[in-house]
Amino acid sequence: MKALYYNGEIAVIDTKKPVLIAGEAVIRVSMAGLCATDREIFAGYMNFRGIPGHEFAGVVEECADGAWIGKRVTGEINAGCGDCDYCRRGLERHCPKRTTIGIAGRDGAFAEYLSLPVGNLVELPDCISDEEAVFIEPLAAVLEITEQIRIEPDWRILIVGDGKLAALTAMVLRLHGLDLTVSGIDEAKLDFFRGLGLETVTGVIPADSFDLVIEASGSPNGWESAVSSVKPRGTIVLKSTYHDKLDFNPAPIVIKEITLIGSRCGRFKPAVRLIERGLVEVKPLISKVFSFEDIQEAINYSRSSECLKVLIRFPAAD
Amino acid sequence: MKALYYNGEIAVIDTKKPVLIAGEAVIRVSMAGLCATDREIFAGYMNFRGIPGHEFAGVVEECADGAWIGKRVTGEINAGCGDCDYCRRGLERHCPKRTTIGIAGRDGAFAEYLSLPVGNLVELPDCISDEEAVFIEPLAAVLEITEQIRIEPDWRILIVGDGKLAALTAMVLRLHGLDLTVSGIDEAKLDFFRGLGLETVTGVIPADSFDLVIEASGSPNGWESAVSSVKPRGTIVLKSTYHDKLDFNPAPIVIKEITLIGSRCGRFKPAVRLIERGLVEVKPLISKVFSFEDIQEAINYSRSSECLKVLIRFPAAD
Repeated sequence: MKALYYNGEIAVIDTKKPVLIAGEAVIRVSMAGLCATDREIFAGYMNFRGIPGHEFAGVVEECADGAWIGKRVTGEINAGCGDCDYCRRGLERHCPKRTTIGIAGRDGAFAEYLSLPVGNLVELPDCISDEEAVFIEPLAAVLEITEQIRIEPDWRILIVGDGKLAALTAMVLRLHGLDLTVSGIDEAKLDFFRGLGLETVTGVIPADSFDLVIEASGSPNGWESAVSSVKPRGTIVLKSTYHDKLDFNPAPIVIKEITLIGSRCGRFKPAVRLIERGLVEVKPLISKVFSFEDIQEAINYSRSSECLKVLIRFPAAD
Repeated sequence: MKALYYNGEIAVIDTKKPVLIAGEAVIRVSMAGLCATDREIFAGYMNFRGIPGHEFAGVVEECADGAWIGKRVTGEINAGCGDCDYCRRGLERHCPKRTTIGIAGRDGAFAEYLSLPVGNLVELPDCISDEEAVFIEPLAAVLEITEQIRIEPDWRILIVGDGKLAALTAMVLRLHGLDLTVSGIDEAKLDFFRGLGLETVTGVIPADSFDLVIEASGSPNGWESAVSSVKPRGTIVLKSTYHDKLDFNPAPIVIKEITLIGSRCGRFKPAVRLIERGLVEVKPLISKVFSFEDIQEAINYSRSSECLKVLIRFPAAD
């Protein structure tokens, strides 16, 4: 099969299709999403070597449980050991032995085929297209915020960032009737948020002004903005991960007694429901769909400032 | 009066005694404590200029309310505006217009006299000596931890640091019957913690092992130890402030979904009660008491590795 392979360099290679192993399913990938995390992986993040890609839709082609065969699916990206304290509490995403597709210890979705534990499969309803299904993973990551913290209804909330993750965050939190402001740098992208009826800010963000700040910029600059703009005793949710280090003094966290919460992957089913019910409309976030054969071009395009989300379409099954 | 003055350089100067102003009291200082924060101020922290010192005991000499005159006191270090949202909620320590003695916008206790709002005064019971009273401020800062978070009784807790703040933290949390380990570098200091019946660790701390980590090392190195040793979904309480920056990648906070809580000043009255009841025995933490005329020597000594706490005694009133 064809796959994108990362080994310090990016290359499209011919490699063996995954062999069906016990407890797993082999999925033919139909569509995959390029994400900021992939670009960080290409910069060295997580020291990953293998096939990247963790947002996908596909069709189960091989599985010991015949009921799955032919089903359209996406999949939870963390595969736990199934046996530790974390797995037993439904927190496979924190299992110390976990693998994560396209990020740590397991090949991902930038390939014609992908193997995943059956327990990770999430069936797609007919009304969710492959294009939309690619957003289930990042949407689940946004829903992790409300799994982790209880948001007071009168909080002033700032979202730092104007990219895809910021957009999904805004689309979810506006459903809760919350007071939302979005800070960004790209006026065209901020238009999207204004279209959702939200306040936007460019340039300097007022200091000490927000009860909750969600850092979803994907950039080290977002950290300082978040620490500065949050009120004393306020909360910062940190969603951004990147390869670069920060040069940072933690004293403001102590002085302002900030609560800072790291937030990563979430559960898929509520994300499926939000798309299924039409409450989160992800299609406007698609900047461009590329064929897999043009994936190098897709990666380059995804670095452009106007790009929100790039999808990769795989050839249909024979 | 004589005072220690910091203006980029440390010097003992002759300066005017504070004049009594409305709402404040003039206190003759009997005893003051040298704290890691003072040493950071001498390194440039908070860009403070003036008389440092924020841990003290003294006697009220002038006050519009005659009932205070002659009383032995210490004082809460943050003076709020009394009028904002924070002050109305009893959070003067987060008032945006606050001054903080010896740290921000207000002269401190390394002087024969000090002026403080009457609302900040805390009367000392006879059974608390001046030496002990100096510990009320840092002990209140430790009690801030349990004001901010609810600690589960079966949590494994790590205190990073073997200095005075770590010791006070250990002495408070052992009263709650908690499972405590202390990580440090100085075997002599760790003996003190072993004497309290606590586990200690030097060298590498096991990764992903503690539900709660309290970073009280006062050093940038403590940050990495805390982030590494805390369990996924665990909590870090950050007490250390310093002038230096960290070179730091926040990805582990996101990946492990750590909750990181900055923690600064606390309320004085519970700290008074703990010392009054003999539940926290602070005297073993006193390394040496210097006369004010030897304050430069005291500062030098306080930088030595064996030092836990240095006190400065002022000449008795005439």
